[in-house]
Amino acid sequence: MEDRAQIQEHIKTQGELVRRLKAEKASKEQIDEEVAKLLQLKAQLGEDGKHQFVLKTPKGTRDYNPKQMAIREKVFNTIISCFKRHGAETIDTPVFELKETLTGKYGEDSKLIYDLKDQGGELMSLRYDLTVPFARYLAMNKITNIKRYHIAKVYRRDNPAMTRGRYREFYQCDFDIAGQYDAMIPDAECLKIVHEILSELQLGEFCIKVNDRRILDGMFAVCGVPDEKFRTICSTVDKLDKMSWEDVKKEMVNEKGLSEEAADQIGEYVSMQGGMDLAERLLQDQKMCQSKQACAGLSDIKLLFSYLQLFQVTDKVVFDLSLARGLDYYTGIIYEAVLTQAGVPPPANDSQNGASSEESVGVGSVAGGGRYDGLVGMFDPKGRKVPCVGVSIGIERIFSIMEQKAEASAEKVRTTEVQVMVASAQKNLLEERLRLVTELWNAGIKAEVMYKKNPKLLSQLQHCEEAGVPLVAILGEQELKDGVVKLRVVSTREEVDISRADLIAEIKRRTSEA
Amino acid sequence: MEDRAQIQEHIKTQGELVRRLKAEKASKEQIDEEVAKLLQLKAQLGEDGKHQFVLKTPKGTRDYNPKQMAIREKVFNTIISCFKRHGAETIDTPVFELKETLTGKYGEDSKLIYDLKDQGGELMSLRYDLTVPFARYLAMNKITNIKRYHIAKVYRRDNPAMTRGRYREFYQCDFDIAGQYDAMIPDAECLKIVHEILSELQLGEFCIKVNDRRILDGMFAVCGVPDEKFRTICSTVDKLDKMSWEDVKKEMVNEKGLSEEAADQIGEYVSMQGGMDLAERLLQDQKMCQSKQACAGLSDIKLLFSYLQLFQVTDKVVFDLSLARGLDYYTGIIYEAVLTQAGVPPPANDSQNGASSEESVGVGSVAGGGRYDGLVGMFDPKGRKVPCVGVSIGIERIFSIMEQKAEASAEKVRTTEVQVMVASAQKNLLEERLRLVTELWNAGIKAEVMYKKNPKLLSQLQHCEEAGVPLVAILGEQELKDGVVKLRVVSTREEVDISRADLIAEIKRRTSEA
Repeated sequence: MEDRAQIQEHIKTQGELVRRLKAEKASKEQIDEEVAKLLQLKAQLGEDGKHQFVLKTPKGTRDYNPKQMAIREKVFNTIISCFKRHGAETIDTPVFELKETLTGKYGEDSKLIYDLKDQGGELMSLRYDLTVPFARYLAMNKITNIKRYHIAKVYRRDNPAMTRGRYREFYQCDFDIAGQYDAMIPDAECLKIVHEILSELQLGEFCIKVNDRRILDGMFAVCGVPDEKFRTICSTVDKLDKMSWEDVKKEMVNEKGLSEEAADQIGEYVSMQGGMDLAERLLQDQKMCQSKQACAGLSDIKLLFSYLQLFQVTDKVVFDLSLARGLDYYTGIIYEAVLTQAGVPPPANDSQNGASSEESVGVGSVAGGGRYDGLVGMFDPKGRKVPCVGVSIGIERIFSIMEQKAEASAEKVRTTEVQVMVASAQKNLLEERLRLVTELWNAGIKAEVMYKKNPKLLSQLQHCEEAGVPLVAILGEQELKDGVVKLRVVSTREEVDISRADLIAEIKRRTSEA
Repeated sequence: MEDRAQIQEHIKTQGELVRRLKAEKASKEQIDEEVAKLLQLKAQLGEDGKHQFVLKTPKGTRDYNPKQMAIREKVFNTIISCFKRHGAETIDTPVFELKETLTGKYGEDSKLIYDLKDQGGELMSLRYDLTVPFARYLAMNKITNIKRYHIAKVYRRDNPAMTRGRYREFYQCDFDIAGQYDAMIPDAECLKIVHEILSELQLGEFCIKVNDRRILDGMFAVCGVPDEKFRTICSTVDKLDKMSWEDVKKEMVNEKGLSEEAADQIGEYVSMQGGMDLAERLLQDQKMCQSKQACAGLSDIKLLFSYLQLFQVTDKVVFDLSLARGLDYYTGIIYEAVLTQAGVPPPANDSQNGASSEESVGVGSVAGGGRYDGLVGMFDPKGRKVPCVGVSIGIERIFSIMEQKAEASAEKVRTTEVQVMVASAQKNLLEERLRLVTELWNAGIKAEVMYKKNPKLLSQLQHCEEAGVPLVAILGEQELKDGVVKLRVVSTREEVDISRADLIAEIKRRTSEA
């Protein structure tokens, strides 16, 4: 533990830093952060000058309690079953990568990367997503074909809004197909997978928007956006799901210096939504057709929809020219799945920043992805490309919805799978209880015993009611003499004597029924 | 991506740093580290001056490929089943904690903690184990009773020896029981769990050593070790599994300044091994009995062994006075499970430091734990204690052993669970294949299709052989006309026509048999 003197020294330096920043008129954000650190240090000294812990998890992170874990396990099982049904293998990569592995992959979002402190040795950063580590893995192992999923936590120094499932440490569930294949078949399977998962999780209505980076770029070109402004205009278009067109246009014109005329032309296109028909119409569009890129993208969207029909998922897929996704590495089709049905409203005490009251956890993006044919080549010494397409399921919002559902429902979430508690009503039977529970464990039965020499029967039964344990095996002097165990069904309170020799079979029979 | 100029700038500053350290005669270790960083920077520029990536994972970490993941899943399933059989819930905590949460918990090992860079906001470190985050979780949520497991990665800036399963990022599988209970019952259950897991994993012979922190401290006291030297002498005793008694004694006397007489007395005790009988004998030992602490520890060891007899695990448990475990937070019983049967020898190319050729991956510590009654109180503002005992399974060595076993065995490890591939021998049947695979997916069957318009039948069959897919559903013009599918068993090459309506039931029947 740091001692008092050390902390006071820290407080002094930190106080000076804050004063200097204020004098220099540093950004409010920066000053706020340093003030927060100062307060944290002061809290350590506490009122009475005693060292006190700040008992919390770091900003934007949380613990999962057993109930939340039970829900998380259920969601993961649904998702993993789907990935396995589609023949995916799985891999894992370290939580941190060499810093330079992540450099230059995320455009404007790079500032959100967590770096590790330089403690000697290599410079490292926490992974920001699972896609860049995947590309690094493929290049490093010279893999040109794989269908894999990867479920793991990623890290972003973003503004958290935790009741809506936005964290700084959060899970991603990624499914990607790498390899040189015929156009749009793997891309369509990714959308099929999103459709299956969101349907099975029963999260309410959803819609999957698709677009293509080449259509966006072509559109920018024919609308007169200068080449060097494609990326920044693209990231403004990306805000259309949260901002009105008027505000987006203002940002384009006033902040990014686009001509009003160009902005208006973009405005016309990005209001378009449809299916295969829209792709066909735009292929006839005089202006759009000036861009070869856009045409290639539109033809692929057509082909994609033909496969989606065979996969029976066109009911939820919309071709939407306003979909732009920020990440630098996409090269072809892009997509995003959005929940559209307002569910349970968020709790009133969303104390984190920026929680607008109208935004329900049941509405918003829950999956996204696209094609990134150039990313692996960025890691290969000879620049060899491995075409990839993939999807990432944003699990945290799904957890939040499931948690709210579980809380609203009357059904109790069990956090253990215990089938039977070994109990006794009389004193001095600890040894007998331990002997019996050992028999059960050795037979593969999930069993518990209270860690007391002489627990009360009532407290043993109460524990079963609370934890949802269905059976109690009760031992007493008489039962021991008779070579039986009293088996009690917790829900009905029915009790029956079972001979010791039959007990295991009887428990297995009763718990397999349930 | 950092540009050339920026990297050259870094190289310059780094070069200056190295020169300065050499001039200042800094430690070889520090100089080596900074030189490594310099070389890393230079490698980025490459021979031809082009920016080149260092294609690797950070030192001491690794990726898991699909085969390793299949093995990992199997090991986790065994361990999790055992934890669940014993009625445990599970929780999860963030990968990083506030820095001060970890401060002062690990004694001399604190230097191995990874810190995050100060990017504004709180100061944070990567978790070093799962025990301290567990204690923080209990204190923060005022939980006084829980039996939980937690499987997650932890981080230590240690010297890696990867072929023997020693990494800087590695999994721990922790099981802990928190709560005020009657003595030694939960402690005995932890040992029962280690016994069950190591037996089920079939890792060869093992032995579980137990000792008690109070016996160690009492022993040091009666042997004349000054109070302030307990911890440091304890960490020297801890090295007895890797060093001879002579070397341990030398370290005590020469480096830690213990009297030769005290060291010799310690030497006598730490050579003792036994069971309940040894505890009984030491309770009669005139010198040992001078320490109340030691007596309390010895009585508890006796009680522990009586419960271990009921749990039927005394065959593998040894009371060993040389067991000392380094961590600061243990207060009572401590234990460690050790594999004793040399298995497959390690690969010759253990290029990481310190791999002595005699040390096989099949030998060494695979689990450890103990009682830590004071740790939660360190987090509680009022210092309220929650007694805890737990065990941590060191999974990486187990993975290594299982991997070597799998490689030595003829049996192929499957990395997907695909039951059937939808194939065709003729051209222009992509749409029909997609239609059929959709039917199978929608019926919950694990199915695959090649992402080619016109794949060769041979390459489709070859894929099945390689990936272990048991069935192929073959479509052709004739089959479509007849309303059937040709179902081929990959292993026997037997083929049979199944009507389209019966296909799903037939696949389910055949794959549930297997």
